[in-house]
Formats: sequence, structure tokens, C-alpha cells
Amino acid sequence: MRAVDIIRHKRHGGELVRDEIAFLVSGYTRGDIPDYQMSAFLMAVNLLGMSEPETLALTEEMLASGSVLDLSDIPGEKVDKHSTGGVGDKTSLVVAPLVAAAGVLVPMISGRGLGHSGGTLDKLESIPGFNVALDLKRFRAVLSEAGCALIGQTNEIAPADRKLYALRDVTATVESIPLITGSILSKKLAEGISGLVLDVKVGSGAFMKDVNSAMELGNLLVAIAGRMGKRAVALVTDMDQPLGTHVGNALEVKESVDVLSGAGPEDLTELCLVLAAHMLVLGKAASNLGEGKKRAAQLIASGAGLEKFIEIVKLQGGDPRVVEDTSRLAAANNQREVRASRSGYVGAMETEQLGIAAMMLGAGREKVDDTIDPTVGLVVHRKLGHPISKDEPLVTLHYNGASRLEEAEQLVAEAYRIDDEPPAPQSLVRTVLGLEDRSS
Amino acid sequence: MRAVDIIRHKRHGGELVRDEIAFLVSGYTRGDIPDYQMSAFLMAVNLLGMSEPETLALTEEMLASGSVLDLSDIPGEKVDKHSTGGVGDKTSLVVAPLVAAAGVLVPMISGRGLGHSGGTLDKLESIPGFNVALDLKRFRAVLSEAGCALIGQTNEIAPADRKLYALRDVTATVESIPLITGSILSKKLAEGISGLVLDVKVGSGAFMKDVNSAMELGNLLVAIAGRMGKRAVALVTDMDQPLGTHVGNALEVKESVDVLSGAGPEDLTELCLVLAAHMLVLGKAASNLGEGKKRAAQLIASGAGLEKFIEIVKLQGGDPRVVEDTSRLAAANNQREVRASRSGYVGAMETEQLGIAAMMLGAGREKVDDTIDPTVGLVVHRKLGHPISKDEPLVTLHYNGASRLEEAEQLVAEAYRIDDEPPAPQSLVRTVLGLEDRSS
Repeated sequence: MRAVDIIRHKRHGGELVRDEIAFLVSGYTRGDIPDYQMSAFLMAVNLLGMSEPETLALTEEMLASGSVLDLSDIPGEKVDKHSTGGVGDKTSLVVAPLVAAAGVLVPMISGRGLGHSGGTLDKLESIPGFNVALDLKRFRAVLSEAGCALIGQTNEIAPADRKLYALRDVTATVESIPLITGSILSKKLAEGISGLVLDVKVGSGAFMKDVNSAMELGNLLVAIAGRMGKRAVALVTDMDQPLGTHVGNALEVKESVDVLSGAGPEDLTELCLVLAAHMLVLGKAASNLGEGKKRAAQLIASGAGLEKFIEIVKLQGGDPRVVEDTSRLAAANNQREVRASRSGYVGAMETEQLGIAAMMLGAGREKVDDTIDPTVGLVVHRKLGHPISKDEPLVTLHYNGASRLEEAEQLVAEAYRIDDEPPAPQSLVRTVLGLEDRSS
Repeated sequence: MRAVDIIRHKRHGGELVRDEIAFLVSGYTRGDIPDYQMSAFLMAVNLLGMSEPETLALTEEMLASGSVLDLSDIPGEKVDKHSTGGVGDKTSLVVAPLVAAAGVLVPMISGRGLGHSGGTLDKLESIPGFNVALDLKRFRAVLSEAGCALIGQTNEIAPADRKLYALRDVTATVESIPLITGSILSKKLAEGISGLVLDVKVGSGAFMKDVNSAMELGNLLVAIAGRMGKRAVALVTDMDQPLGTHVGNALEVKESVDVLSGAGPEDLTELCLVLAAHMLVLGKAASNLGEGKKRAAQLIASGAGLEKFIEIVKLQGGDPRVVEDTSRLAAANNQREVRASRSGYVGAMETEQLGIAAMMLGAGREKVDDTIDPTVGLVVHRKLGHPISKDEPLVTLHYNGASRLEEAEQLVAEAYRIDDEPPAPQSLVRTVLGLEDRSS
């Protein structure tokens, strides 16, 4: 078997068989197949797609490139959730403790932020001392004790994905639904879970800008996870505006604690409850979504969710005082308001631009080795449909250095479109995929 | 400017501008842009194509990556021909001396064979002593004296093409009409010629299997050459069977000498006359094709063409005695007949398989660093439409070692389809493109 023949087969529209995909993935991971052959293959996949059997083979071979956690000795259902990324999406920090508080285990392996999109690990690290680099032994211990542990990807998990993702990033081959599917599932299904909730973001702040692409990705994720023996459900949810009001690492920890305290903004709280409900159903702690949502709401009302978060923070070395009193979280030295240029209604938001503005202030990374300032970011005062008067504050920038302040300020101002009439309201959850066999 | 952004632009169907293409070609040639980015770009071009302006920019930038010969101090019109490659295509060995004998200069830079397709340089090297690696000074001297010189590509000419071609070969990105156009013209237009005849082969032994693709390539070649200020004409010619009867290096030299002696097979002689006629018209030595063809035929009849070939051979260090008496050419030690399995008519030939059989015997290269046996090859006795009786010889294999003999024998036997009725005859020249302004 030769890589060039497999590439040619794909290039001419052929469907690859398992052996061909295994040859490519294992050969590339080992270094026997050079980057230049793999990048040609990735571009062919970008432009020609992959069938479901091809995507299944790709995902399974990527998974098989590394270790798969065996958590069978820790009793209980294990579920996780994954978001395709957006601006202000801090739901993991809320739903992981909520679901664990309900007795379902959450062995969550997360990523870091890149570009306009934030990452769970960066948010957690704004809690002083919080260690996301637990070894697998300690990870298991925390999971056993608290029912939830939150760590970063280790070298043992899906090394094929790490190598492929780095190559896709520099060859403009990221935006491929089968490759995204393989990347997400090869990591998440290495966690030893039996159920997975996928939050596929759609809109101006998401990777997927239109609902059809998001549904295609959601359907493929559910189908492939199902073929690999996992219960999965995908929600296509709104990212035409930031989720909640806070964007930036410590700012998002604060808002997550607000939600767990029953004082969070409505959209973020609602999405957390819905995601938690799906996880509880998959984890057999609720028999339907209504029951799951009610249970999650009770765990907020009783304070059990917040208590669980504090327990996890302590077990992972973090300082619980900043969670108990979020005014103790480190804060940026300066604030500046971006104000409305006219009166009207917020008609549209270039949400990705808001994420990039936060990145420019230091909340995110332009390149993978950039460092993060946990304190900086945006607080959004006006969202879609809100009435606004000229010169009222739209967004507060939280910043330290002023090096890219004006650039960020301009980006935020330009991200708002103010209309004479409010836009038609849009639903937070556009659709749910993969529910047919267990709907409420 | 960043390579990844240019690749993304192309991947999303955008049309690249000159600066972007120049950035890629020059950056890649210098080594600043890595193979893995270029191969992703090449695959995108394979699958999405290139506009004519993009192809023009690509060709011009590839040409500009190296030197362009300035032959303006050698008086006279300079023309060349290029074939896209086939089986038994030895027309260069005939038309170069014929056209030079008519007073038009032919500064021909040729390639080597790869896969099923032969190469002019390998054929010439079966003449003992023939040196295809003249330096440019000696090349000019031979051209001045004989009106024709035949050499291989030098390091100074289109280095971008050499590097790109090697990458295309291992990434299954060879088969792209704009990339083929850039590759051919960046080399041929470095020769300092004003006119170029392109022989685009079509059929079972050609790179282009269907007439539409061949016409697309021919039209693009003519258009781009024209945009670069060169008179060009493209002939789409038959490669559904070998050209002439001899396949293999010394065997093809013998057949070329036969044509120049007026004793060549009809199809090969006819195509040589047509190609020479077009070159004479482009070189202003004939006012129309009829006159050009008549002139070429006279140069065969008078022996002037053969004399010119002998002159070139001598000037390039070759032994003229093997041309004067082709029985002195080195020959293979053994022959074996492949015979017809049934009676009927030759209905179809898998010509590429015949080329691969010749390669297996040692006449060609599977990989670029394979060595060639100049003596081996095939002599084809029955071609399309010929009647055949069971057990009559179809092809004689000329071989030395027997290592792949049986494999080659089987390939040849399987390459013939014998039908009850003869096939409809096909024209040797399917169409001529780019003639509109100077037809006979």
C-alpha cells in the first residue's frame, strides 16, 4: 500500500476502505507518511468530503492512535459534553459540577482557547492554584471522590489528532465536517464515557455560520458516536451573540459562579439547564428532559451545584475562596466603555469580532504559544433586541496594557449594528439531534 | 502575506491575484514555503481548477523562477514542439532535423521517460556517445552550426517546475490541466523560441483519455502561450495505439531513421509531416500547411533530413555509423512473440499497458532513478483494425534479463482486444487548435 495511491483514489472521488484510512492515520502518526502527503489528502477531504463509513474509520483509527481510559472500576454512569466553541461559552464550568452533584460522573478532558474562541482550561486556570494537568492517577482519584474532574488533553490521548490538527491549522484544512468530527470524537471517546452531549454552536460567533452546516456536523457527530457504541445527542445552539454577558477568563468564572448561585443571566442559565438535563438523561439520572431540567434547577437552588464546584476546585489544588467570593478573583486594572453611536435596537452582533477584541486585550491566543491574561475581557451590556440610546455603554472593556486597546475598542464598536426596529427573536436551542429513542 | 491565507482563499473558490501566486511560487522555490503547504494548494488546484489569468500568472512565475535563454544573437526563426507523451512517440527525432534542414532553428530541451511514456533524451542516448547534457555555450554552438540542438533540462531553467513536479508526483496532484500547462510552458518558453507546436495526445496510451480533456489542455496551452507573446498551435492526436510499430529506445531510433529514409510506417510518417508543417509555418519557412508538408516530404525524399540528423548526432558526440546503418545499433539478446488468442480484428489496444510492458523489460523507468536498457522494447505487428488469425504474432518482445518477462508478456496479451468486426477507423489528428489566424 502506498500513500500516493490512496490520495489518488480519494482525489478521483473514490471511497476509501478501512485499511487505507488505517494506513494513513497510523503511518502519519508514526512519521512514516510525510506532512506533504497528509496535507494533500486533507485538502482532498476538505473539498470532496467523506462518507459516514470513511468518517467512522477515520475517527476510530485516530482514537486507536492513543490510549482509551478504562474507568470501569469507578462505578456509575459517565457522561461528558463538548462545545464546538464560541464567545462567552462557559457552560462546562456550570454543567460539570451540576451533573456530578446529581450522581453522574463527568470525566471531562477539555482544550484551550485559540483565536476568537475561549477554552475551559484557561478559564479554570484563572482560579489561583487550579491544576488542569493532573496525571491520570490523580484524575481518577478526583473523579472517584467528587464525581467530576477537569483536565487537559494528555500526550497519551489521540496523538494522531494533535499532529493532524497542527497540520490542518497551517494548510487551511480545518473547516471540514468529517475532519472536525474525527478530531472531536477521537478525543472525547478516549475518556471512557458512555454518553456525550454535543453543543454545536451556530451563528456569527461560531465556527459554523449557518444552521445547515451545524446540523450536518451535529448529525454526523451523533451518527459516528452511535456507530462507536456511545449514546450521543447534539444540540444546535445560538452563537449570534455572546453567551451570557462576560467574556474573558476570570470574568467567565465569576459568571459561572453566578449561574450556580441562581443569579446568572437568563440565556446562559437556560442553556446550562438544558445541557445538564441531556447529560442527566444520558447518565440515567433522569428519565426525561423535563425531569432532568427540574433536577438541575433544584441543584442550583439548593446550592449543591456550587458546593460541588468548590469541592472540585479544592481537589484540583485551586483556591476555593475566589469561588466563595468572586470579588476576590484577580481583576484588570482599567476599564473603558464602548458606547452606542446612535439610538435604536441592537440588530446584529459580529460575535466573532467581540471574541477577537477580547483576545487582543489578552484574554485569548492568536498563536498557540501566546500567554493569557486571566483578568481581561469584555462585559456586554446590550445584546440582540435590546433598546439603546445614543452614548449609552454597549460593552465595558477590562484591560491592563493599552497596546491593542484602541484596536479592540474599534472592533467592539463595529461589531454592533443598531437598527430602528428590534430583530425577530431567535431561539437559544435551534434543534436537538439524536433524540428519537429517548425523548421526554 | 501568508501562505495559509492564500490556500484558504483558493480552497473557498476564490480567484488568486498575481501577487499571491508569485508569493507561493517564489517562496516555494526558495524553500520558505514548506512542501506541506504547497501540496495542500496543489490539491485545491487539482479539484477546483484555475482561471486563465491564474494559469498565466502561475506559468509566468514558474518561468521567472529560472533563466530564459536569449538566442537573439543567433539569426533565424526558432520554433519547437512538445508532446504530452505516449507510447512509441519518436516524432521529435524526426521533426527536429527535418525542420532544421528547412532553415528554421530548433533549440529543443526535452525530458526523460517516466512510467509508460518514453522520453526523447533516453532515445537519443541509445546512440553511443550522444551527449544530451551540453552546457549552454555548447548548446548555442551546435544550434548555430546545425540549426538544431537536443538537450535535457538544465538546473537554470524553471527550477520551480522541477520542485513542483517532484511534489505533484508523490501527492497525486499531477493530473491538473492548469498545472500541466504551467509545467510545459514554463520550460518550453525558457528556450528563447517564438513559436511552439504542441502535440496533445489522447487515448488509451495518453495522459488524457478523452478528447474533451485533451482539447481543454490544448486550448489552454495555446491561450497561455499566446498571452506570453508566443505563436502556438496545439494538435490533438491519436494515442489509442502506439505511434508506428517500435517501442523502446534503440528500436525507436531505428524507426525514426526509417522515417527520415522514407521507409517509415504510414501513421508515424504522416504525423511527422504534419507536425513539421506546423513548425515550418510558425517558423515562416512555409506560407501554409500544404506547402509545409510538401517541403517536409521533399526533405525526406532528398535525404536532407537524415543528413541533418547525422550532422546533429556528430556535433553532440554521437556515433553516426549507427544512424547510417541502424543494424549497428545495440540490440537485445532475446526475442519472444506474443500471439493472438483467437482470430478476428484488433478492436482495441490498452496502449498504456503496452508502455508499461516495455518499461518492465527495462525500456523505461518506474521510479526516476531507475536505469534504462536501451536495447529492449516491443515491436508491434498488429494495430487497430488489422485482421488477425489465431496464433499469429501480435507483438515481439525484445528482452535481455527474464526477471519480469512473463509479467510483460501477459500485459501485452491482455492489452489486445480481438473482435469479430474491425473498429471504425479514427483520424490520426483529431483537431488543431489555435490555427485561426494563419490557416492554409
